[in-house]
Amino acid sequence: MGHCNSIEIILGEKKMIKVGIIGSTGYAGAELVKILSGHPEVVITALTSRQYIGTPFSDVYPALRGIADTKCQDLDVDLFCEDVDFAFTALPHKLPMKIIPKLIERGVKVVDLSADFRFDNVKLYESYYQEHSEVELLSKSVYGLSEIYKSDIKNASLIGNPGCYPTTVLLALIPLIRSGLIKKENIIADSKSGVSGAGRSLSLSTHYCEVNESFKAYGLEGHRHRPEMEEVLSKESGDKINITFIPHLLPMTRGMLTTLYTQTEKNIGKDEIGNCYKEFYKEKKFVRIYTDSSTPPALINVQNSNFCDIGFSHDEESGRLVIVSTIDNLVKGAAGQAVQNMNIMLGIDETTGLI
Amino acid sequence: MGHCNSIEIILGEKKMIKVGIIGSTGYAGAELVKILSGHPEVVITALTSRQYIGTPFSDVYPALRGIADTKCQDLDVDLFCEDVDFAFTALPHKLPMKIIPKLIERGVKVVDLSADFRFDNVKLYESYYQEHSEVELLSKSVYGLSEIYKSDIKNASLIGNPGCYPTTVLLALIPLIRSGLIKKENIIADSKSGVSGAGRSLSLSTHYCEVNESFKAYGLEGHRHRPEMEEVLSKESGDKINITFIPHLLPMTRGMLTTLYTQTEKNIGKDEIGNCYKEFYKEKKFVRIYTDSSTPPALINVQNSNFCDIGFSHDEESGRLVIVSTIDNLVKGAAGQAVQNMNIMLGIDETTGLI
Amino acid sequence: MGHCNSIEIILGEKKMIKVGIIGSTGYAGAELVKILSGHPEVVITALTSRQYIGTPFSDVYPALRGIADTKCQDLDVDLFCEDVDFAFTALPHKLPMKIIPKLIERGVKVVDLSADFRFDNVKLYESYYQEHSEVELLSKSVYGLSEIYKSDIKNASLIGNPGCYPTTVLLALIPLIRSGLIKKENIIADSKSGVSGAGRSLSLSTHYCEVNESFKAYGLEGHRHRPEMEEVLSKESGDKINITFIPHLLPMTRGMLTTLYTQTEKNIGKDEIGNCYKEFYKEKKFVRIYTDSSTPPALINVQNSNFCDIGFSHDEESGRLVIVSTIDNLVKGAAGQAVQNMNIMLGIDETTGLI
Amino acid sequence: MGHCNSIEIILGEKKMIKVGIIGSTGYAGAELVKILSGHPEVVITALTSRQYIGTPFSDVYPALRGIADTKCQDLDVDLFCEDVDFAFTALPHKLPMKIIPKLIERGVKVVDLSADFRFDNVKLYESYYQEHSEVELLSKSVYGLSEIYKSDIKNASLIGNPGCYPTTVLLALIPLIRSGLIKKENIIADSKSGVSGAGRSLSLSTHYCEVNESFKAYGLEGHRHRPEMEEVLSKESGDKINITFIPHLLPMTRGMLTTLYTQTEKNIGKDEIGNCYKEFYKEKKFVRIYTDSSTPPALINVQNSNFCDIGFSHDEESGRLVIVSTIDNLVKGAAGQAVQNMNIMLGIDETTGLI
Repeated sequence: MGHCNSIEIILGEKKMIKVGIIGSTGYAGAELVKILSGHPEVVITALTSRQYIGTPFSDVYPALRGIADTKCQDLDVDLFCEDVDFAFTALPHKLPMKIIPKLIERGVKVVDLSADFRFDNVKLYESYYQEHSEVELLSKSVYGLSEIYKSDIKNASLIGNPGCYPTTVLLALIPLIRSGLIKKENIIADSKSGVSGAGRSLSLSTHYCEVNESFKAYGLEGHRHRPEMEEVLSKESGDKINITFIPHLLPMTRGMLTTLYTQTEKNIGKDEIGNCYKEFYKEKKFVRIYTDSSTPPALINVQNSNFCDIGFSHDEESGRLVIVSTIDNLVKGAAGQAVQNMNIMLGIDETTGLI
Repeated sequence: MGHCNSIEIILGEKKMIKVGIIGSTGYAGAELVKILSGHPEVVITALTSRQYIGTPFSDVYPALRGIADTKCQDLDVDLFCEDVDFAFTALPHKLPMKIIPKLIERGVKVVDLSADFRFDNVKLYESYYQEHSEVELLSKSVYGLSEIYKSDIKNASLIGNPGCYPTTVLLALIPLIRSGLIKKENIIADSKSGVSGAGRSLSLSTHYCEVNESFKAYGLEGHRHRPEMEEVLSKESGDKINITFIPHLLPMTRGMLTTLYTQTEKNIGKDEIGNCYKEFYKEKKFVRIYTDSSTPPALINVQNSNFCDIGFSHDEESGRLVIVSTIDNLVKGAAGQAVQNMNIMLGIDETTGLI
Repeated sequence: MGHCNSIEIILGEKKMIKVGIIGSTGYAGAELVKILSGHPEVVITALTSRQYIGTPFSDVYPALRGIADTKCQDLDVDLFCEDVDFAFTALPHKLPMKIIPKLIERGVKVVDLSADFRFDNVKLYESYYQEHSEVELLSKSVYGLSEIYKSDIKNASLIGNPGCYPTTVLLALIPLIRSGLIKKENIIADSKSGVSGAGRSLSLSTHYCEVNESFKAYGLEGHRHRPEMEEVLSKESGDKINITFIPHLLPMTRGMLTTLYTQTEKNIGKDEIGNCYKEFYKEKKFVRIYTDSSTPPALINVQNSNFCDIGFSHDEESGRLVIVSTIDNLVKGAAGQAVQNMNIMLGIDETTGLI
Repeated sequence: MGHCNSIEIILGEKKMIKVGIIGSTGYAGAELVKILSGHPEVVITALTSRQYIGTPFSDVYPALRGIADTKCQDLDVDLFCEDVDFAFTALPHKLPMKIIPKLIERGVKVVDLSADFRFDNVKLYESYYQEHSEVELLSKSVYGLSEIYKSDIKNASLIGNPGCYPTTVLLALIPLIRSGLIKKENIIADSKSGVSGAGRSLSLSTHYCEVNESFKAYGLEGHRHRPEMEEVLSKESGDKINITFIPHLLPMTRGMLTTLYTQTEKNIGKDEIGNCYKEFYKEKKFVRIYTDSSTPPALINVQNSNFCDIGFSHDEESGRLVIVSTIDNLVKGAAGQAVQNMNIMLGIDETTGLI
C-alpha cells in the first residue's frame, strides 16, 4: 500500500471510494476487510494493526490470500488520511476517542465500532467505561442502528456503531415500543452469543477446551451493553426503561440469539404483533419477520449474513409475548451494520456489498 | 444372558442386586447401562431393545465393549421378571403404562424414565400426553426428585423419574418457595439443552449439519415439561403457580442450563438466598451452590456427573433474582437420578455408583 | 415460478441466463441455489425437489428467505426445459442417467454433480455403481475439473462434476505427475471430510450425538471415489496408477482435507515442487499454493469459498513428499466447481459469482 | 492439606497410598486428580501448582468441587516428600529433570509425564529437546507403555510415561513387529489429535475461533514424538526403523486417532493380523481389537476411558495393511496410563481405578 490519493482509483467507468480500517486484525476488523473486499463501490487503501505492522493482511488471515494482501501498517493519522475517504475504527474502547477527532478534522467520515460514540448521555458512558474526552464530538455522533436511524445516519460524519447485544434487542423492541403494544416494565433479555464476540485476544475463557461442549451465563452482575440498550429504549419510549439482561456464551463461533420476555398491553390480538413488525420493516431487506411460531429463527439462518431474523410467540390471554431475535454478531452485530451505515452515509443503496 | 435368578449372583461375599433395563439402547437407556456397569451393588441381568434383539449391547455402543456385552432381548415380561430384582424402563411415553403394572405385580420395583408416572393429576397428564390407563398405579407412584422427596422414594415401588428440564427448575426453586423467599408470579425459565435430550431417533432436527454451529428456541407454543414443573411447584407452594418456560437447543451433546428470572419478596438480603440454598442442600452431595456470582455454573463442570450446580445473582434493591441451574441431562436429568432413586429404594447410600 | 422463456429476463441492459436445478434441496443443491442467487449473469427459473413439491425453497432453507423464494416443483422435463437455458442435476447416482439425455436433446447444457458422467471407462463405473444406460452420452461428457480441463469444458454440453475427494487429490497431484516429479507407486491419500459430504438424508452416522466430539475412518474396504481418482491419474500419467485412499469423518460441517504421502523422483530440489505448483496454477485464482510448510493450509481458510489451498513438505534426502490439499466440500468439492464449469461453458470469466 | 505422613491414612481396614501431583493444574495434571480422586487404593495428599498457590484445586476446576478441594501449594520438595509415597510429575519438559532426582533420593516413586525420562539414547533426547542433566537416572528409568513393558515397570522407581502419539502408534505396531508380520520400511502414521493435547496454556492456535470448524496438519517439518516412536520401534525390531509421522489438529477436545499405512510381508493371510493382535492382547483389558473392518474404531468409544481401540483393513493381494488406533489423549495418552503404571508399580491390579 502506498499513498493512493493522488491517483484516482477507477474501475472501468467507476470512481471507487477509498476506505481504511484502523484496527483491522481483530475479528470485527477482519470481517470488515472481508466484506469491503467484495464491495463494488469501494477499495481498501489502508489497513492498520499495531500487532502486525509490515505483515500482509492475508498472512494474518490466510482465508483472504489473493483477496486482501495489503500490508498492515502502524497508524500515522496524516498518512492514513491522505489515503482514505472513509474510515472504520475497530479498536478497544477508549482508543477511538483519541484518534477519531483527527480523522473528522481532516474530512474523513468514520464508523466507529467501539462504544465511545454510542451514548447520548456522557455520564452514562463514563459510569460504565471511563472519562470521555470528546464530549462535543459525542454530541454530534449518531447511533448507527441502520434500520431505525437511517435519516440521521445519512447526514452524519461519525457513527457510533451499535453493540451486538443491543442490535438484537433494539431491532426487536423498538417497533413494539413505538406502537405502544408492550409494557415498559419487566422486560427481560436472555442473550446467547458465539465466542467470536469475545474477540481474538487470548484468555482462558476463549481457550477451545474451556468453551467447547460447555455453556454458561456471564456478566451476572452487570454488562456494559445494558445501559446502551436502556438509553435507546428510554429515548424511544419517552420513559425510563430498565431491563434485565443476562448474556451467555455459546459453544460456537458466530451468532447471537436473544430471547425477550415481555408483556403486551391489554387486548392486543395475535396478529397485531406480526402486523406491527411487518409494516415497520416492510422495506428493510435485512430484517426478516417469522410469523409462524412453530419455526422460530435459528442462528444457522443468519450466519455470514447481515440479516436480523425475528420471531415471536404471543399468548393473548395472559399477554405474555416472547420474542426471539437473531443475528451474526460479526456481521449485523458489527462489521455488516458498519458497512450498511457507510452505504447510507455515501448515499448508495444500503444493501450494497452485503448479503 | 440367560435366566439368572436360580443362581444367586455373588461377588466375593456380596450378594448383588439383579437389575434389568427395558429400552436399553436409547441414550438414556445406554447411560443407565454405563452407570450400572460400574455400580458395586448391582449386576445387569437383562437388557431389552426392540430394535436390536439378539445383538450384544456393546455392538450397539462399542464404548462398552468388554464392559456390557450382554445380548439385547425382546421383552418377555415373565422371563424378564425371573431375571431381575429391579427394573428401569426407558421407553417412549405410553409404553411404560402397559408394561409396568405387570412388573409391579411380580414384585419388581421400577424406576420409569418416561412421563407416565410423574403426575399426581391424571387430567393434567391426559391433557398433555394421552389417556392414562393405570390411574390407580399412578396414584401410588412417587415423583423421583431425589433430593426433595427422598423419604417417599424410600418406600415406593414405582418412581416416576423427573424430566430433565423440571429437574433444573425444581431443584433451584423449591428451597426458595418453601422458605417463602420468592414471589410466585412471573417466574420465567429460559432453558438450553444439549442434543442428546432429543434422543437417538432420526430426525432432521438432530442431523449434525442442522444443529452444529446453530442455536434456536423451540416449543414456543408449549412444551410438556411445563405442566410437570407447575404441578410440583404448585403443590410445594400451596398456590397455583404458572411459569413461562422456553427451551432452546444447544450445539453440544450433553448438558442443560436453565436461567430463571424471579423476584424476591421484600427486604430479602443478599445472603439469605445463598444461606437458604446451603442450608437446604447441606447434606446433599449432588447439589452444589455457587455463591460467587462472578463465577457462575458452566456445563463443563457437570458433564458426565450427577451434579446439579446452582448459582444466582440477586439485586437487593429491585428484588430481581436470576438463578442459573445446570445438569447433565442424561445423568442428573435421566439415568443418574434414576440410579440415585434406585439406591434410595434399596436402602443403600444414595451416591453409590455415581459421580 | 412460471414458464419464463417466452419473456426474456433482462436486468438493466443485461440478458440473464436462465438456470434450473434438479434436486435443489439436498446440501449440494442448496449450495447451488445460494451461489447462483448471487451470480450476476444468471437467474434461477426452476428448482425441483421430489420431497418439497409446492414449498417455497426458502421454507426449506430459511437462510435464503428473501433471496430464493421460488417454489420447488416436481420435475416435468418438458416444462423444465421451457424455463431454463442451463441445468444442474444434484441427484443421487443413477437418476441423472435417466434425465440428462432428455435435457441435452432439448438443447439444455448440463452440469451433473453425480458420478454418472464422470468416468471414461464404462466398465469401471459399472463395477462400482450400476449398469450404465447411456454409454454414448458418457463418451461425450467431460470431467469437470475446472483448472485442469478448461478447454474441454468450454466446448462440452455435459459435465460430470468431480467428486469432492478426487478434487482434493487431483488438483494436488496432476501438476506433479505431468512434470514427472513424483513416483507413481505407493501414493497414499488420507482424507478427512466434514459431515455435509454425507448429505442431508437421515442416518445414525449423521446424527449429531454420534458425530459430535468423535472422529473415525470409514470405507476401509473401498470407497467409490478411489476408481474416479485412479482413472484420471492413470490417464494423466500414461501408466496405471493405484492409490491407497482412506476417508475419515470430521466433527464439523464443511471442509475436506487430504494428506497425500508420495515420493519424489531422485534429485528433486526443494524449490522444484513449489515452483511446479506456482507455475502450473499461476493464472488460476482458486488454487492457492502455500510454500511455507510451517503454516500449512487449514480448513478455516477455504470454508464458504471456491478455493483449493495446497501446501507441502519435502524431504530432499529421502524424497518423501507430504502434500496437504484443502477445499470446502460443498463449494469447490461440489456446487462451486459446478458453477465454475457453467461459467466456462457460458464463455464468461470462470470466477464470476464465486468467492 | 497439611503434612499427613505422621498419621497413617486409613479407610476402614485399608491403608491408603499417599500420592502427590506436581503440576496439577494443567490438563494432564487435572485428569490425574480426577482419576486418583476415584481410585480406591490411594489418597491425594499434595497438589502443586506454580500458578495457583493457595487456591483450592476445585476453584481451578469447579467440576471437582466436593471431590478435590485440596489447596494447591508451591513445590517444596522436602515437605512434599513428607506427604507422599508416590508422585506424578506433569510439568513441561526440562523441569522434571531438576525435581525428580530429589524425589527418588527420598524414596518416592515417580511417574513422569514429560519426555525427560522416555529415551534410552540421551543423544536422541538432546537433539530434539535440550541437554540432559540426569543421564544416570535416565538409564534406570523405564518407558511406561503399560501393556508392553509391564515386567520392567513393576520393578522401576521412575517411569517415563509415553507420549500420546507414540502410545497410539506403538500399541498398534509392536505386536506386528514382534511377529515379523509387517515390513519395517515405509511406515506412515497420519495422526489426528483433539485440542487438549496442546495443553491449557494460551496461544492463538488454541483460541476457540481458530480451531472450531477447522482442521489442519501441523509439525510438517518434524514433531518430537517421532524420535520417541522410532527409538522404541527400532529396539523392538532390532533394525533402525524410520517412520513418516504427520500430526493434525481436530476440532474437538479429547481423543487421538492414528491411521497407519504399512505393508505386510508376503503371504500373510487375512486372519493372521487379527489373530496376532488378539493373542497378544488377550489378557489386556485396555486394548480392544476390532476385527470387522466395516465398523472401525471411533473416538466416541474411547473418550473418558483408558482404552486403546485398534482396527485394521488388510488387502492380501497387495499386502497393504491400514491400521486405525484410537485413545483418549488425556487418559491412555497421559493420566490414565500413568495411573496404570502406578498400579503396576504398587503391585495392585493394573486396572484399578480406571475405566
